[in-house]
Amino acid sequence: MSTIKPVSDAEANPRVQAVFADIRAARKSDYINNFWRYLANDPALLEATWAEVKAVMGAPSALDPLTKEMLYVAVSAANSCAYCIHSHTAAAKAKGMTDAQHGDLLRVVALAAKTNQLATALQVPTDAAFDAGRSED
Amino acid sequence: MSTIKPVSDAEANPRVQAVFADIRAARKSDYINNFWRYLANDPALLEATWAEVKAVMGAPSALDPLTKEMLYVAVSAANSCAYCIHSHTAAAKAKGMTDAQHGDLLRVVALAAKTNQLATALQVPTDAAFDAGRSED
Amino acid sequence: MSTIKPVSDAEANPRVQAVFADIRAARKSDYINNFWRYLANDPALLEATWAEVKAVMGAPSALDPLTKEMLYVAVSAANSCAYCIHSHTAAAKAKGMTDAQHGDLLRVVALAAKTNQLATALQVPTDAAFDAGRSED
Amino acid sequence: MSTIKPVSDAEANPRVQAVFADIRAARKSDYINNFWRYLANDPALLEATWAEVKAVMGAPSALDPLTKEMLYVAVSAANSCAYCIHSHTAAAKAKGMTDAQHGDLLRVVALAAKTNQLATALQVPTDAAFDAGRSED
Amino acid sequence: MSTIKPVSDAEANPRVQAVFADIRAARKSDYINNFWRYLANDPALLEATWAEVKAVMGAPSALDPLTKEMLYVAVSAANSCAYCIHSHTAAAKAKGMTDAQHGDLLRVVALAAKTNQLATALQVPTDAAFDAGRSED
Amino acid sequence: MSTIKPVSDAEANPRVQAVFADIRAARKSDYINNFWRYLANDPALLEATWAEVKAVMGAPSALDPLTKEMLYVAVSAANSCAYCIHSHTAAAKAKGMTDAQHGDLLRVVALAAKTNQLATALQVPTDAAFDAGRSED
Repeated sequence: MSTIKPVSDAEANPRVQAVFADIRAARKSDYINNFWRYLANDPALLEATWAEVKAVMGAPSALDPLTKEMLYVAVSAANSCAYCIHSHTAAAKAKGMTDAQHGDLLRVVALAAKTNQLATALQVPTDAAFDAGRSED
Repeated sequence: MSTIKPVSDAEANPRVQAVFADIRAARKSDYINNFWRYLANDPALLEATWAEVKAVMGAPSALDPLTKEMLYVAVSAANSCAYCIHSHTAAAKAKGMTDAQHGDLLRVVALAAKTNQLATALQVPTDAAFDAGRSED
Repeated sequence: MSTIKPVSDAEANPRVQAVFADIRAARKSDYINNFWRYLANDPALLEATWAEVKAVMGAPSALDPLTKEMLYVAVSAANSCAYCIHSHTAAAKAKGMTDAQHGDLLRVVALAAKTNQLATALQVPTDAAFDAGRSED
Repeated sequence: MSTIKPVSDAEANPRVQAVFADIRAARKSDYINNFWRYLANDPALLEATWAEVKAVMGAPSALDPLTKEMLYVAVSAANSCAYCIHSHTAAAKAKGMTDAQHGDLLRVVALAAKTNQLATALQVPTDAAFDAGRSED
Repeated sequence: MSTIKPVSDAEANPRVQAVFADIRAARKSDYINNFWRYLANDPALLEATWAEVKAVMGAPSALDPLTKEMLYVAVSAANSCAYCIHSHTAAAKAKGMTDAQHGDLLRVVALAAKTNQLATALQVPTDAAFDAGRSED
Repeated sequence: MSTIKPVSDAEANPRVQAVFADIRAARKSDYINNFWRYLANDPALLEATWAEVKAVMGAPSALDPLTKEMLYVAVSAANSCAYCIHSHTAAAKAKGMTDAQHGDLLRVVALAAKTNQLATALQVPTDAAFDAGRSED
């Protein structure tokens, strides 16, 4: 079930075809996963979203690709996005996440959820020592 | 403002004193941050929570300490826990997170929040290719 | 799967029958969607919830019906309520939401989720200029 | 308190100065609100975020500017982003949101949160009638 | 800081005065807490919200008042509503919640947040045995 | 669909077998629900999680078992954890939750979600009277 229909290759207009071709080239795979096929109903949204994903996740940056992918999984779990948990866990495994690293990820996510709740339920005041926004003098 | 009072060193009972001493030893610092002082109203909860934080975040494991700390920041941001965002961002910096790595973390968290919303709002069906739970034959 | 059973027309007691009749009259349709059939296990909750939905969404007010329906979709997406995303997206389409308006809705929801995360992760202090609660003198 | 420091006009590098100038021009106001001053620590993130906000919220599209701003407020409230609730409620008022429209917005957001919880707690199955993703034949 | 101004007794119109009088009578206290003073900008919303709170929390029902108040605290913590955590923790204490019960509440909320994350991150399929919606034959 | 595979009795290593045996003994039932079979991929995580669930939910404490189970359901609903809503609603029923109590639970959870949203959207300042963290003199 979904709120709109996916776009097949046959239905794709030239703008969508161009994005699909770029996804295939970037991933060295012919498979286009559902997220992009559904976004393709709105070519401008598809283009902008793919460009951002490619830039943030695909380009070399201060964090290695696997770390970024694990951060993506963690946020997706905290946001209860079933689709994203599936797609980014699969991506993390494809980028080399071991079972032990996956276990570690789960442990941190679960512990963070727990202490987040405790700090929030107690409304613990933030220590002045943590403030990075103050001027130094 | 908070829903209970913090426990000062003078008010700490022996169980609380023991945890505070272990926190100081583990961190090589005399400072006890508020989270622990508020949890200290319930010594059993303090002991269990500190033991879990020490085991998950402090012990060697498949992920390095900085990666785990950044995962903690990401989940805390997704869960809107102001205290935890402050304390774990400070911890990540103390473990060596550079400004560029912090920027990368923010980019991934923000992008994940965005695509989480899109996948959820469209109710995109999960691709069978992502299912890791199926039997192989 | 669900945590309770739905109530069929045949099982409906007079209070439930009255609400079902009012839903049918208000919508000019014989179809009762699942949300109401499950709430019907608790006739008082069914009555109160339907009365509130009818008053807020059905009565003329400062915002037009389609705008209210799109706000409902946006909140349901942010809250990850699969059922509500489906039912209120369908309702928005029935009230005239075009594909372009749906695309705009998705863009705003996704952008908001992203900047929400950035402001939260940075713990940006609120500008005094935004405070509407202060006294004027 | 914040996790990084804001960037003043004096500290802004040329890329940041260019974005600040564009914000001032677009809003016909010299005031730069905190969100942008904090993002300015990462010029690339500042540029990309401002470009997206300008495109989604500032350019003519299928929804009028006030409707988009109210959707932003609704999502920010659902995501508990204090900063964003303040800044976008102020923006909605600046774009003409009346007290009655604000009241309507609050009513819909509150009702949605309530029925979201009921549908989720009961795990109500989605009606097949709501599925827009099925093929027609 | 807030997005609207509170309504003082002097500014209250007759509808607001009537609700304030009823709150004072129900609570046997002259104090009106901020939540009601802010809602009072919209008398209809104030009336409806107070009526619902009074009916759900104040009237005898299947659960005792303290249990209902603790459920309120738990949900408010999960939803990160700082105001509500404060007001309902205070209400629970006023209804007799002991420190030990508060500690238990915190333990369950924290554990639930943790296992919620684990089940969600693993996307554990729901056991058929838990389905209460199936027909019996 | 899931992100890892469940562990069958035949695949369970001795540490997993020991936990499964303890679950069976504690529940006086041979059935092991999916949550534990998926966690079993990481024996240390399985052991720690089961030990915590047993201690918090199974041991006598200041709150009775049914109240704790209902708090678990409420948090799971607020966190949108489908699996947990199903498993803990079933557990609450097994511990004696009546239909009327379930109805009350739903009413409180739904009302809390609604007023949480109102307080958050208005950014109502917390009354000083609710602060339990202040020193008394």
